[in-house]
Amino acid sequence: MNLLFEKIRHSPILWLLALVPVALAAAKLAPESHTLLFVLSVLAIVPLAVLLSHATESIAARTGDAIGGLLNATLGNLTELVIALAALNAGQHLLVKASIAGAIVTNTLFMLGASFLIGGLKYHLQEYNRVAARVLASLLFLAVVALLVPSAVSKVDAAPDAALTQKLSGGLAVILILAYGLFLLFSLKTHRELFASAETAESGEVPWPVGLALGTLAAMTVLVALVSEIFVESVQNAAESFGMSPAFVGFIIVALVGAAAEMASAFSAARKNRLDLSVGIALGSASQIALFVAPVLVLLSHVIGPRPMDLQFWPGAVVMVLIATLTAAFVTNSGRSTWFVGAFILIVYFIFALTLFLLPPGVGR
Amino acid sequence: MNLLFEKIRHSPILWLLALVPVALAAAKLAPESHTLLFVLSVLAIVPLAVLLSHATESIAARTGDAIGGLLNATLGNLTELVIALAALNAGQHLLVKASIAGAIVTNTLFMLGASFLIGGLKYHLQEYNRVAARVLASLLFLAVVALLVPSAVSKVDAAPDAALTQKLSGGLAVILILAYGLFLLFSLKTHRELFASAETAESGEVPWPVGLALGTLAAMTVLVALVSEIFVESVQNAAESFGMSPAFVGFIIVALVGAAAEMASAFSAARKNRLDLSVGIALGSASQIALFVAPVLVLLSHVIGPRPMDLQFWPGAVVMVLIATLTAAFVTNSGRSTWFVGAFILIVYFIFALTLFLLPPGVGR
Amino acid sequence: MNLLFEKIRHSPILWLLALVPVALAAAKLAPESHTLLFVLSVLAIVPLAVLLSHATESIAARTGDAIGGLLNATLGNLTELVIALAALNAGQHLLVKASIAGAIVTNTLFMLGASFLIGGLKYHLQEYNRVAARVLASLLFLAVVALLVPSAVSKVDAAPDAALTQKLSGGLAVILILAYGLFLLFSLKTHRELFASAETAESGEVPWPVGLALGTLAAMTVLVALVSEIFVESVQNAAESFGMSPAFVGFIIVALVGAAAEMASAFSAARKNRLDLSVGIALGSASQIALFVAPVLVLLSHVIGPRPMDLQFWPGAVVMVLIATLTAAFVTNSGRSTWFVGAFILIVYFIFALTLFLLPPGVGR
Repeated sequence: MNLLFEKIRHSPILWLLALVPVALAAAKLAPESHTLLFVLSVLAIVPLAVLLSHATESIAARTGDAIGGLLNATLGNLTELVIALAALNAGQHLLVKASIAGAIVTNTLFMLGASFLIGGLKYHLQEYNRVAARVLASLLFLAVVALLVPSAVSKVDAAPDAALTQKLSGGLAVILILAYGLFLLFSLKTHRELFASAETAESGEVPWPVGLALGTLAAMTVLVALVSEIFVESVQNAAESFGMSPAFVGFIIVALVGAAAEMASAFSAARKNRLDLSVGIALGSASQIALFVAPVLVLLSHVIGPRPMDLQFWPGAVVMVLIATLTAAFVTNSGRSTWFVGAFILIVYFIFALTLFLLPPGVGR
Repeated sequence: MNLLFEKIRHSPILWLLALVPVALAAAKLAPESHTLLFVLSVLAIVPLAVLLSHATESIAARTGDAIGGLLNATLGNLTELVIALAALNAGQHLLVKASIAGAIVTNTLFMLGASFLIGGLKYHLQEYNRVAARVLASLLFLAVVALLVPSAVSKVDAAPDAALTQKLSGGLAVILILAYGLFLLFSLKTHRELFASAETAESGEVPWPVGLALGTLAAMTVLVALVSEIFVESVQNAAESFGMSPAFVGFIIVALVGAAAEMASAFSAARKNRLDLSVGIALGSASQIALFVAPVLVLLSHVIGPRPMDLQFWPGAVVMVLIATLTAAFVTNSGRSTWFVGAFILIVYFIFALTLFLLPPGVGR
Repeated sequence: MNLLFEKIRHSPILWLLALVPVALAAAKLAPESHTLLFVLSVLAIVPLAVLLSHATESIAARTGDAIGGLLNATLGNLTELVIALAALNAGQHLLVKASIAGAIVTNTLFMLGASFLIGGLKYHLQEYNRVAARVLASLLFLAVVALLVPSAVSKVDAAPDAALTQKLSGGLAVILILAYGLFLLFSLKTHRELFASAETAESGEVPWPVGLALGTLAAMTVLVALVSEIFVESVQNAAESFGMSPAFVGFIIVALVGAAAEMASAFSAARKNRLDLSVGIALGSASQIALFVAPVLVLLSHVIGPRPMDLQFWPGAVVMVLIATLTAAFVTNSGRSTWFVGAFILIVYFIFALTLFLLPPGVGR
């Protein structure tokens, strides 16, 4: 328990934990102050996500490579998953889909771009293992294609009926999870050496004891779930009063909040000139969203929420995700990075954000 | 002639030859059993394609490099061409176009993916000449762009009138064949060293005498033509009774059947850890479809069949072909392959197939 | 002044200068002979562009690296800018947008392809610095994405209203110019060594004295502006009498005329086996159009011409620009070139041109 307080004391971002009870209390006392609740819940999720991530890594470090890797791989995007489940439960499918597409774009553009920029401001030219980056980039490309092709194909052809879309999405979800299982077999068992650096290098800090880690994991998951519910309830009204389209909220805000913990790791690695790690986190996490989080949400939507969710994305999202993936593939192809490449990737991200911000509220519905 | 029987005895796939007379007889005796005729004709084409391919290679091996290379290059996709001609003759333009697009996708995804998987199950990491792969991948990319750009451009703009489409397709066909002529000049004359390995390495078996090879070539072409006619006549009704859309039949079934012979070579090369050869067959054959088979069919459609065929593909086909080409380019960029890359490419192929299978029958018309 | 005549005497292309007064006189005497005026003005712009380019380089050579680089970078596409301003002034937004998109395609396909072909006819295999080419290709990819994403996203979604498009285009123009400023900082200051060869290698000729260069620069800019006005006035009617769509004129004719000077440099470098330089000119100039010329035109359209111009491109243009950029990225990825790659890129360009030529005149409006 001391370790927990120690960690909080040394990470200014964790001081935001104080907002968790504030948010929960505000939701009881002022359930109509949507804007306040929105801001509080966004800020409160960030430190929870960081602790969740640290707890997962600690358990992974204690349980040995195989199970640890599996845990890291499946719980790495737990925050995104819990937020999306809250939205699913409220029947807000648009928000869920926007946050899936947005998480892929945010991981490939914002996280990668900011890592390159942060590293590039300190080092003139950063080199990283371009073979590993290419393997990851082609995995990501395949994952994104697998996720999006049905949207792309059926959107450009005649409007398909809902039953067909539902059947296709169900089949796709099963195939994606199967592919994810093969990926785990590949990365944790048959070809673990390709991913070795990204797994072990993260430490630096002493891992927590298993008891503390498991307790933190459970507690944080519950807290994220509670705060996410406040977030999902307030987001619609708050977005309107800020003049933001729902597509913007899901694509940009939820995605940034959900990826806060991974970003902290990726940026810190970039500052230490270990871009291999940053690239691995960014591309790996994006692949995981496409291969694991998205299909799990589709399957769970048959149990949770008012009606099953399909995997049809609106055309603008398809275009952005494909472009973000191609950008990541191009940019990591050379195995080198400078501040300008990072800055330019961020500019593309801001142009996406600007476009979404200005879109009329109906888009994406 | 002994050589022919020898070959048949050693290749279990050639035992399917027995189905050729069965299919021809069944077409006379039970012309309404569409499903039976469909299955018989599909199974009977496979061994014919294998013998056709072996005969072509034997002639190529006997006639020396330049003419042999030319023969291999023009007759390599003879089975696809003959099947498509039968469909053209029956006026089934949708089937022809779907089989062109499907052949490119099947060669780049299924053949490449299965080669990587087959090789990867035997070898931990397979390396191949990535310079040659990149040259081939950029040729394929250019070939596909040249084939598809008019579809892409005119589909997204206002619906063009039929006369314009016809004029554009005719001009395009001439340009593509010109490009193919330049490609032959390049690969057989000015820069043959780039393609050397893929040409010579195929052998291993003793080539047949020219007489036997020429006779087999002629006989098999006639038989493929006869069986293709049965196939084309039965496919429409059979597809309906199997619940398959015409797009699925052309894109998946015809493409797989037509490429059976090349696949046998590509897979056997992968098992022998000669991925250079597998990649060369897959990408080279796909380029040939785009640059030679497709424009020849357009030009011949002015002579054969009820009306000229254009080169407008339906949007879903354009998207799938472009994505397959990009995938091939990305995946061969690193010059390395593992079982997982192969498995994942196959998964993308199955997702394409699932999407096409579930599409309503009207799509693609 | 002697230097100027010396240069004219040695460059047959500059003999076209004689057409400048002819064009100006014809515009006064026969303002209705649109076809004649069109041909005269196109031919008269070419030598002016060449002199403009030589004057810019001379000033750049005299003023030292940093300012010289800045001058070269901002004035490199001065001809395109002046022609586009004349079109903007006449309210011909379609022509302006087609010339922006066309300039990117012409630089990446025609200039690159012809350089490869010219070099490849002389040298069996040309190698160039593929690291620099990849950096340039990913810059170009990002620049094009930044320019096009709003078009792509809003075209595929519901038709956006004009006010939104205008706001988005304005914001985008500011972001693009900011990105261009960062690019100058990157290429002229923090990482100039990456671009070193392209800057210094151009010379070979003795630079003019500053006085002559400045005078030529001013005089040529005025002359280009005058001739461009004739061109813009005559193009509409001339295009109709030649049977060309406005999209074709802007995309192909204006783009080729505007890039004439850079092409001369790029082709001459290819002949000298210095493909680094050719690739640098082609990709650099295309990036500059996207990052500098296009946003400057949007911002100036608030001052010049009847109404502000937005950055929405018609879908066919978006597809062509994206494909041209991907092609450039693929083809320069290997760092090698042969005559066939060049010939094939040119074929893709001709297919684009054929498609645009055959399009009905309404497309792109």
